[in-house]
Amino acid sequence: MGSQEQTTLVTQNQLFYGTFIYPKTLTELEYLYNTAVAVDQNGTIVAIKRDCDLSQATSTLLPRLGWAPNSVTIHSSSDSHNQFFFPGFIDTHLHAPQYPNVGIFGKSTLLDWLETYTFPLEASLSDPAKARTVYNRVIRKTLSHGTTCAAYYATKDVTTTNLLADLCLRAGQRALVGRVCMDQLSPDYYRDASAADSVAATRESIAYIQSIDPTGAIVRPVITPRFAPSCSAPLMADLGKLAAETGLPVQTHISENEGEIDLVRELFPAKKIGAKGDTYTHVYDTFGLLTDKTILAHGVHLSEEEVEIIKARGSKVSHCPCSNSALASGAARVRWLLERGVEVGLGTDMSGGYSPSVLEAARQAALVSRHVAMGCASVEKGSKGSKANKDGIDRERAKLTVEEVLYLATKGGAELVGMKGRVGGFEVGMEWDVQLIGLGRDVADGEYEGEEKEEEGNVDVFGWESWPDRVAKWVYNGDDRNTRKVWVKGRLVHERK
Amino acid sequence: MGSQEQTTLVTQNQLFYGTFIYPKTLTELEYLYNTAVAVDQNGTIVAIKRDCDLSQATSTLLPRLGWAPNSVTIHSSSDSHNQFFFPGFIDTHLHAPQYPNVGIFGKSTLLDWLETYTFPLEASLSDPAKARTVYNRVIRKTLSHGTTCAAYYATKDVTTTNLLADLCLRAGQRALVGRVCMDQLSPDYYRDASAADSVAATRESIAYIQSIDPTGAIVRPVITPRFAPSCSAPLMADLGKLAAETGLPVQTHISENEGEIDLVRELFPAKKIGAKGDTYTHVYDTFGLLTDKTILAHGVHLSEEEVEIIKARGSKVSHCPCSNSALASGAARVRWLLERGVEVGLGTDMSGGYSPSVLEAARQAALVSRHVAMGCASVEKGSKGSKANKDGIDRERAKLTVEEVLYLATKGGAELVGMKGRVGGFEVGMEWDVQLIGLGRDVADGEYEGEEKEEEGNVDVFGWESWPDRVAKWVYNGDDRNTRKVWVKGRLVHERK
Repeated sequence: MGSQEQTTLVTQNQLFYGTFIYPKTLTELEYLYNTAVAVDQNGTIVAIKRDCDLSQATSTLLPRLGWAPNSVTIHSSSDSHNQFFFPGFIDTHLHAPQYPNVGIFGKSTLLDWLETYTFPLEASLSDPAKARTVYNRVIRKTLSHGTTCAAYYATKDVTTTNLLADLCLRAGQRALVGRVCMDQLSPDYYRDASAADSVAATRESIAYIQSIDPTGAIVRPVITPRFAPSCSAPLMADLGKLAAETGLPVQTHISENEGEIDLVRELFPAKKIGAKGDTYTHVYDTFGLLTDKTILAHGVHLSEEEVEIIKARGSKVSHCPCSNSALASGAARVRWLLERGVEVGLGTDMSGGYSPSVLEAARQAALVSRHVAMGCASVEKGSKGSKANKDGIDRERAKLTVEEVLYLATKGGAELVGMKGRVGGFEVGMEWDVQLIGLGRDVADGEYEGEEKEEEGNVDVFGWESWPDRVAKWVYNGDDRNTRKVWVKGRLVHERK
Repeated sequence: MGSQEQTTLVTQNQLFYGTFIYPKTLTELEYLYNTAVAVDQNGTIVAIKRDCDLSQATSTLLPRLGWAPNSVTIHSSSDSHNQFFFPGFIDTHLHAPQYPNVGIFGKSTLLDWLETYTFPLEASLSDPAKARTVYNRVIRKTLSHGTTCAAYYATKDVTTTNLLADLCLRAGQRALVGRVCMDQLSPDYYRDASAADSVAATRESIAYIQSIDPTGAIVRPVITPRFAPSCSAPLMADLGKLAAETGLPVQTHISENEGEIDLVRELFPAKKIGAKGDTYTHVYDTFGLLTDKTILAHGVHLSEEEVEIIKARGSKVSHCPCSNSALASGAARVRWLLERGVEVGLGTDMSGGYSPSVLEAARQAALVSRHVAMGCASVEKGSKGSKANKDGIDRERAKLTVEEVLYLATKGGAELVGMKGRVGGFEVGMEWDVQLIGLGRDVADGEYEGEEKEEEGNVDVFGWESWPDRVAKWVYNGDDRNTRKVWVKGRLVHERK
């Protein structure tokens, strides 16, 4: 397996016809009906024609593109099955090796969860056979939920980290794949021997991943310090230099849990590391880990001062609501981040998060934003109400709409993974990372008293709903059954029969 | 359609064999392996034999019961598909006519949501053809999610309320069916003309429902004042008398939203109605609506004083976490209610709640309890932290476990709908209201890289998980695909092919 197999999978020219929906802005979805979108062999959108029927589309677009009719594959969305094309989801934070533990977390919170559930499982994935099973499954699973691009943490093991990259490339799922760096505090059985070892292993994995996909079209390496408590100051400093040297993206965790924040303050006093402040953000900033390609997961308890630094560096935040609720980490203030100009995407954070679905993350983002609206965000210990007002969060503004959570799941995520402007919409020049969503046939009088409707998923459309209402129904009750087909860069990578 | 059709649907004697799991107590699940459960023609469990193989079970149980082998239908759970029998779910609060609106609520909260989305749809369901379509669908849908008993609100229309009861009886889903009483504040197009009219219509619906199922084995009427703001004092007084006269159960809403609570205080001053206090609870109590058969939906913002009254009357609370988060109503303190001796069940509260699934309600109950643990519950305006401590809510105690939310979904609900001790477990004398849950085959090396696993649902079992871990996986990622078969009172009422 390697670049040859993948790069030879160039597709035919394709013409997609029907209903297209995508986030035009944070607050607005664009609806295109009776529209044709032409996608070339490289998976790039080369022409769009609105308000036409299929024969008009073929008779005008194909000659203009110089495409012989018999060289073009045509895909139509089915109106009778409430189908529409929608941009693929981007999962900006998940741990591939933790996938077998989804849903298993008991009453734990971050630090005891790591010791009890997570480190033992991750360590066991140095077994290539087990890693192959788990990684294949997590890729198939996330593809089936419409995830066209994922920012993966693997483990500290180089061989199986590289295997994850191989498997993503073969499956055609875009991925950032990070070998996890961790040289302190974790158990003896699962820790890098030294900062130097950690950096050397990281370089080895980077070189491999770049060798199998030299252009980085599908898989790319990402520098991955697990989180500050797991990394010595020398290791973080070296990884910061590596980021500067290579220009590669960085991913890590920040400000997820109050116990973790206390630990970071204790481990990295500002004076000791030469930081300009004593926050979690200052630690990463001191070591050069906050770049405009840095994905910071969580950011639940960030202060105003920290957000200013993150914004100034151009780093981004991956919001992981399923995980934050499950591990009782807190309720992240997404509106507050957005209003301060920080770019935000969504992460499933498996297995702190219980679900492989970015749609579930979007749904939970909407619900958690309502808990923020109800005054649940941890702004500063002991003075929630007044601080919340100071932060300008009022009940209405904190709430995220259906449109907004779908933006975060697509275009928002694209900003985090370095694909801004390349995916997330139906515009000429963008790449075809797309899902075909189907909500099934309308419920009609006397029909569907039995079994068959269930096969089309959990969403029921009665036929009188507007398109925005149908989209809301999908967000709140949709699942992988509604994701009928998935393409990445024009290539069909998942299909439900 | 009527009682004849239903009561003739007596089943054969049946023997169920395999793995059985049920809530033994609030905190503990019982796991029975290699067990046989004999169910007679009335759907009652008449014998259980543990730790046997199927031939041992048949050779000892059948002669003892006097059942000829060829008169018994045998159903086994499949170990290779991770199947187990589990009690059916009880949905203790939902609005059947609102089903077409699930997921559609925008940024609304309770009072504007009623005006914008809910009253127009409910009013339109006086059309019997539309009501038949919607009610058939909501019954099929909830059955497919394992709901063996539902406490339905219909509309104020008698004919279609009665139709809902007919359809539940035909489908074999146990139901409380309530004709909704509302003689004030709602729009002219959807309001009872007077208290007397409202009571007369209620009596008419009660008589009809009792005529089609005289023993109330499957469908029963329930007295249903919509909520205090929709009901005049005379109407509530008359409905309280009706409850005392008939001994029928009562269902209504309480303390869902802060604006609603203010409205109730304004509409029903203690002095004016002769109440002993000025709370929402005092209003219902004054009118005799708090009985030991009363189901109170929500109870998000109840005070200590109110809970004492509710406990003293033996009334119960339906916790609706999906709805409470979606409409930003608040985070109900379930542990606090349970510790004060109030019985609690789960409600989907469609369409305030977005999901037809009690499993989703259980999942959200666990997540919302973590928001309560994080200090999000509204105990009293302006003094959250100290009051929360006063109430004895600490971070750990507030969290609900997988075991606890499954108890609420089954045995807890049984207490609310008057079926305590009759359903919710596998014990001799209980009735067979049961789901067969299947998590699908184990993910094995090299298998399932493609499509077929998705058909078995969203839960992935790798084979090394304990049974409690498998149950946790079901709770967090399960859906209607995992509900393979559903029985009510021994009758098969849903099956996925």
